[in-house]
Amino acid sequence: MRVAVIGTGLIGTSIALALREHGASVWLADSDPAAARLAADLGAGEPLPETLDVQADVAVIAVPPTAVAATLAALQARGPAGSTGLARCYTDVASVKQLPMAQARALGCDMTSYVPGHPLAGREKHGPAAARADLFLGRTWALCPAPETSETATETVTELVRACGAVPMRTEAAAHDRWVALISHAPHLVAAAMAARLEAAPHEALELAGQGLRDVTRIAAGDTVLWTQILSANAEPVAEVLAEVAADLAEAARMLTADEPKPVAALLDRGQAGVARIPGKHGGQAPEFTAVQVVIPDQPGELARLFNAAEAAGVNIEDVRIEHSPGLPVGVAELSVRPAEAAALVNALEAGGWPVRR
Amino acid sequence: MRVAVIGTGLIGTSIALALREHGASVWLADSDPAAARLAADLGAGEPLPETLDVQADVAVIAVPPTAVAATLAALQARGPAGSTGLARCYTDVASVKQLPMAQARALGCDMTSYVPGHPLAGREKHGPAAARADLFLGRTWALCPAPETSETATETVTELVRACGAVPMRTEAAAHDRWVALISHAPHLVAAAMAARLEAAPHEALELAGQGLRDVTRIAAGDTVLWTQILSANAEPVAEVLAEVAADLAEAARMLTADEPKPVAALLDRGQAGVARIPGKHGGQAPEFTAVQVVIPDQPGELARLFNAAEAAGVNIEDVRIEHSPGLPVGVAELSVRPAEAAALVNALEAGGWPVRR
Repeated sequence: MRVAVIGTGLIGTSIALALREHGASVWLADSDPAAARLAADLGAGEPLPETLDVQADVAVIAVPPTAVAATLAALQARGPAGSTGLARCYTDVASVKQLPMAQARALGCDMTSYVPGHPLAGREKHGPAAARADLFLGRTWALCPAPETSETATETVTELVRACGAVPMRTEAAAHDRWVALISHAPHLVAAAMAARLEAAPHEALELAGQGLRDVTRIAAGDTVLWTQILSANAEPVAEVLAEVAADLAEAARMLTADEPKPVAALLDRGQAGVARIPGKHGGQAPEFTAVQVVIPDQPGELARLFNAAEAAGVNIEDVRIEHSPGLPVGVAELSVRPAEAAALVNALEAGGWPVRR
Repeated sequence: MRVAVIGTGLIGTSIALALREHGASVWLADSDPAAARLAADLGAGEPLPETLDVQADVAVIAVPPTAVAATLAALQARGPAGSTGLARCYTDVASVKQLPMAQARALGCDMTSYVPGHPLAGREKHGPAAARADLFLGRTWALCPAPETSETATETVTELVRACGAVPMRTEAAAHDRWVALISHAPHLVAAAMAARLEAAPHEALELAGQGLRDVTRIAAGDTVLWTQILSANAEPVAEVLAEVAADLAEAARMLTADEPKPVAALLDRGQAGVARIPGKHGGQAPEFTAVQVVIPDQPGELARLFNAAEAAGVNIEDVRIEHSPGLPVGVAELSVRPAEAAALVNALEAGGWPVRR
């Protein structure tokens, strides 16, 4: 399969990496040449010639929602002499589907070769450096072909989705947009509204923040321009969910003030029941690693010494997290290694004089 | 230091383990004898004699908020003949402070020896088996002495907090309760209100759920009885935050419906600014460090080589995140350094032949 990935952010580069693992040829392009170069350095593919005169099987348009239709129109207008465009078929990855479809129609795009898509996967980080070939493993990938979309195009894009390890889910664009309003777009604004309360909070309050607050508000760190676009593009279904959440919270505030704990307990129970309905993580977890914790002095050279000891023991450290204790001269490094290598690492580090905790 | 830990759940046992590492003698008790036994087996200390006729320097009351005052009263009434109680001073770990203090006063407890406390640390898991000696490393631990509390008692408990590796933060109980309403209690109800929308959601919508929804709603899975207790015990400050969040969400819903994206963008911006104020793991603001990204082959020795190059350049790497693309022979290491040292690191790494992106 020959694939052109237009937009080498997190999603585009991850798709490219996943397809390369399946032996696909991938061309890469991005409005930021440095992003496309980094994606190429990561092994995601080769730069797309500026002339666009290549012939791909699929072009993946991994750009923001409101840029999808214009990009589609541009790609359909280019390609080798005698062709009908850069690719035989096109898909996008925007998290709303009705808007780019309407805009593509308005721009006179060929809808028979366009298979609107949305991989339900992401990370809080952005850009090609955060990309992972396994980002889509076991994840749902919605495909919303228009009535005009050819079955051949849909089948080709379905094949691409499967090659990324994802589970294709064919659905109607309007239903898709209602569902993502509930499970993605409204939660984003809820996280933002909670996080907005922190803007003017006393410094001391924030010093008390723990993991719960970080989790509830994490997604509110996302690109606000992109998210304003997404929310506006899916306004009605998002507004409906938000109004219901707002009503429940306002009622909870009134009941707390009135010292009526029962309705608050009922809301907590409904919330617990709601969380329980979220399916567990699908297959495709990151490989299981064992964590080894080491207390290290917070000074230059200590990490080098530690990694040298690991190297001498022939152990490959798969991931590192360093927890600092502000004001203390030590930190804790959490090293992730393959379970079979954990004992060797612990021995090597203990021999090197580090306090180790497995 | 001789310490009695009353309540060997996650927090109590973790305190005991941390203190034992500092050579303290620890007695353990729990209303569930099996929990106290497990804590003792983990090396957290020795069983507290049922007669309670020992003399401790500090008693740590690690029981639920509404049980703190009664436990304090009982401990102050016991101890060796001629003593004024089990310990010279007392502290607790409940997440609200005004309620146990008011109840202690109502029960006629000696307030001069009681130093109300709240370690801002926890895990998703409960019970002594989940305890960790390093649970409090670098975490804030609020201390809210009453006007009557003796300076000696406060100093002794402060010493205990430091021995656990935590950072003591002395504050007033009313301020503490307002702050935790904002950073812990209100976020819990916000998560529950969002999760409650999922209770009756179509099955297909939930299949689309990703990590964002899981994070926003995760804490809503918590014990609803305990949380109803906590929220009721801190009703006014929690209600105030909830009312503000509800008003912002209701307004966002109206603006989306009216196709007025600007106020929605403003809420997202405020949310992003709020998230940015949550201290990072270094206890400071995130922008304190500059990230340098390096593409590295995924093999033993590469990280050691990289850290050696950083050391040779005199650069202290403050944090490392490694992003792997499983199946690909490279990863991206994101190195956090002080901004003033970023250029030296980039030069050193480029000289060493690594592809670097700042």
